[in-house]
Amino acid sequence: MICMHHVDVHIERDIYAANNRIAKRNHDLLERYGIKAYDLLGAIGSGKTALIERAVPLLKERGIRPAAIAGDVYGDDDYRRLVVLGIPAVNVNTGKECHLDAHLVEHGLEDLPLDEIDLLFIENVGNMVCPTDFLLGAHERIVVVSTTEGDDVVNKHPMIFRGCRIGVINKIDLAPLVGADIARMESDMYRYNPNIHIFRTNLKTGEGISALVEDLLPRAK
Amino acid sequence: MICMHHVDVHIERDIYAANNRIAKRNHDLLERYGIKAYDLLGAIGSGKTALIERAVPLLKERGIRPAAIAGDVYGDDDYRRLVVLGIPAVNVNTGKECHLDAHLVEHGLEDLPLDEIDLLFIENVGNMVCPTDFLLGAHERIVVVSTTEGDDVVNKHPMIFRGCRIGVINKIDLAPLVGADIARMESDMYRYNPNIHIFRTNLKTGEGISALVEDLLPRAK
Repeated sequence: MICMHHVDVHIERDIYAANNRIAKRNHDLLERYGIKAYDLLGAIGSGKTALIERAVPLLKERGIRPAAIAGDVYGDDDYRRLVVLGIPAVNVNTGKECHLDAHLVEHGLEDLPLDEIDLLFIENVGNMVCPTDFLLGAHERIVVVSTTEGDDVVNKHPMIFRGCRIGVINKIDLAPLVGADIARMESDMYRYNPNIHIFRTNLKTGEGISALVEDLLPRAK
Repeated sequence: MICMHHVDVHIERDIYAANNRIAKRNHDLLERYGIKAYDLLGAIGSGKTALIERAVPLLKERGIRPAAIAGDVYGDDDYRRLVVLGIPAVNVNTGKECHLDAHLVEHGLEDLPLDEIDLLFIENVGNMVCPTDFLLGAHERIVVVSTTEGDDVVNKHPMIFRGCRIGVINKIDLAPLVGADIARMESDMYRYNPNIHIFRTNLKTGEGISALVEDLLPRAK
């Protein structure tokens, strides 16, 4: 078992190193095309796809051309919601894995018209743990939690919040119904990441999305 | 890379084999003490802890002595909710892993008064993907989904439903508010597992818990 553990550690290190090499390649490719990319994280049903649905019209109004990669273990439920937005979209199934990796995203990028895209959402598999260590090549990470996940959801997942520039607290309308304390969620986020930008949203109605979209806009170079 | 892949497969096989050996040991131990054990699965905030909170008083009324192991990546939010129920409870943190494994449960069992327990809930890490392949030694698996996760949550996770005897659809009161089609969730469950027992619950109020508890009762031997 001790020996086994050592092999494990080496393999693990190799997997991350290999992933990071491809992530760097993805990042360089995105830079070359002037695409700002976001790795969108959060549990199943937190509102990742809804965020894209709400952001796309506002981005288009500002002359930004969005696109999306939909990552799921199985099926194309999210992908079909993205296609009807009239944006370039690609479906990526991981089969059994609980996260996207840089290699899957690399293939996703091959299927997108990169010269027609300004901003790319990479919607990760609905999971608060697995994606943490697998960088994809995106510029920044956004994590979406919803009040219906319980107001202890942030405290339970320190790692994911440390790596995200933006934290979205969604389904704020349901907070009183499920007894969730939004202030606790916010203070837990700040505790794990003092620099995080927090937005409160109800992505069902679009409440809060404008301020979030302002923060997503690619800066002039 | 091909070589690496081979190593990967072997390691993976070894990990599952090692886990299953310990799971068998846990199972034998539980059998020896006449404890019926449930591996409780579901996403973050689906209602796993709430299910235990609601089930415990009903189980006690029937003379069943419950206990629980609380699995989380980090923290003791769930554990603290279980302790106040006045049942034997153990907190297990996985550190970085997105699932419990048989070895962690084995240590959890060491800290429980096994001769004072009839029914054990093993609350897994909130995750719809990772726990699938890691058996713990429990007799059966229960998966809890909530309507707020979206009515496509079942379709996205075929594997987990195949291995569960019981599927709980929670937060049915919120279904109209989030636009979730409960019938779709049920038919997706039956498609993946025609033998699954489905219960609709609102664990905030306790609606639906009696029928579920009836199904959990250890059968006379």
